[in-house]
Amino acid sequence: MEKNSIPKATLGRIPRYLNYLKELSCDKVPYVSATTVAKELELGEVLVRKDLSMVSGAGRPRIGYDTKMLIGQLEDCLGYNKLTLAVLVGAGRLGRALLQYDGFKRFGVKITAAFDSNDSVLGSDTKTEILPMNRFDDYCKEHSVELGIITVGENSAQEVCDQMIASGIKGIWNFAPCKLQIPDGVMLQNENLALSLCHLRNRLSQG
Amino acid sequence: MEKNSIPKATLGRIPRYLNYLKELSCDKVPYVSATTVAKELELGEVLVRKDLSMVSGAGRPRIGYDTKMLIGQLEDCLGYNKLTLAVLVGAGRLGRALLQYDGFKRFGVKITAAFDSNDSVLGSDTKTEILPMNRFDDYCKEHSVELGIITVGENSAQEVCDQMIASGIKGIWNFAPCKLQIPDGVMLQNENLALSLCHLRNRLSQG
Repeated sequence: MEKNSIPKATLGRIPRYLNYLKELSCDKVPYVSATTVAKELELGEVLVRKDLSMVSGAGRPRIGYDTKMLIGQLEDCLGYNKLTLAVLVGAGRLGRALLQYDGFKRFGVKITAAFDSNDSVLGSDTKTEILPMNRFDDYCKEHSVELGIITVGENSAQEVCDQMIASGIKGIWNFAPCKLQIPDGVMLQNENLALSLCHLRNRLSQG
Repeated sequence: MEKNSIPKATLGRIPRYLNYLKELSCDKVPYVSATTVAKELELGEVLVRKDLSMVSGAGRPRIGYDTKMLIGQLEDCLGYNKLTLAVLVGAGRLGRALLQYDGFKRFGVKITAAFDSNDSVLGSDTKTEILPMNRFDDYCKEHSVELGIITVGENSAQEVCDQMIASGIKGIWNFAPCKLQIPDGVMLQNENLALSLCHLRNRLSQG
């Protein structure tokens, strides 16, 4: 994992930290300690201290964190203050399920268009337009798209990945169950759903 | 993580180990070392040694692993030799995308039925039948279903979770973006797709 990357588990707790901190009035509670946050949220103190230090460095001894600043930094982590644009390639069921999913926007990512090489799915039965692949490159460059989501089958995933990189996309979220080759400077995150289910099944048989 | 649980990253490499080992003839190559496997697959030796020891314990010094036995143990990890039955509740787009996905069977898990409280989605436009919720309990008990997949919204996820547990399900794969309460003895695996995307976006901005 690269330096400074905030683990998913920490990210998952940030909304709870934010809810709590926003309930405090920054004027009346200008500083807040990890100990207080942990106690109020019934979380382990070591855990909260670690989470907050990853987002905001160490708090000031005996004083803690500047509440307002901490809120800002936590919001930055969730992308509240900057919208990142994403496109999706492969408008099959999984792709369309992701298009329909509202939760991404909450984290500062918006899927602005989907692409498919199959003409019959073009147009839109979702809120997002589904465009033909020959418009992919222009679209990504014009809108400075940063993230690409691959929901095509494993046979065309590498080709789609290459197109994304050629169009300036720097982060790829891959749902195809295959290993993609990417150059340095591009971030790849694989989402192997079958593997997740297999992992749960194994935990079950060994638990 | 509970004892003996095999990490997802290791699970993801097992198909490659199996491909390699099955190409060897067990009769001609009765024993194989982690060093050899690592070299042939161009993987780090420490990594392969760790993976194989998790599946099969330490190899015999200077001899390695019994090839045939190792193949069997690796296959067990992927569930080749025992099919686990799963049901899904919530036949929206994500649910139907999962129903359509062929990859689960490869890992020894089969989704045999889906359930939904919305009458209009009952029946089947997928390979799997979509049944009404009032048949859920009987179905699970009758078929000894072990795994439950939750693809309903966050408002009804806990209710569905409780029904699954009452019907004898021991492992729950939750796609709803909320924290579920489960009793001891039930395995819960949360799949927060929005968090995954947020994580990728953060890696991008910090990379």
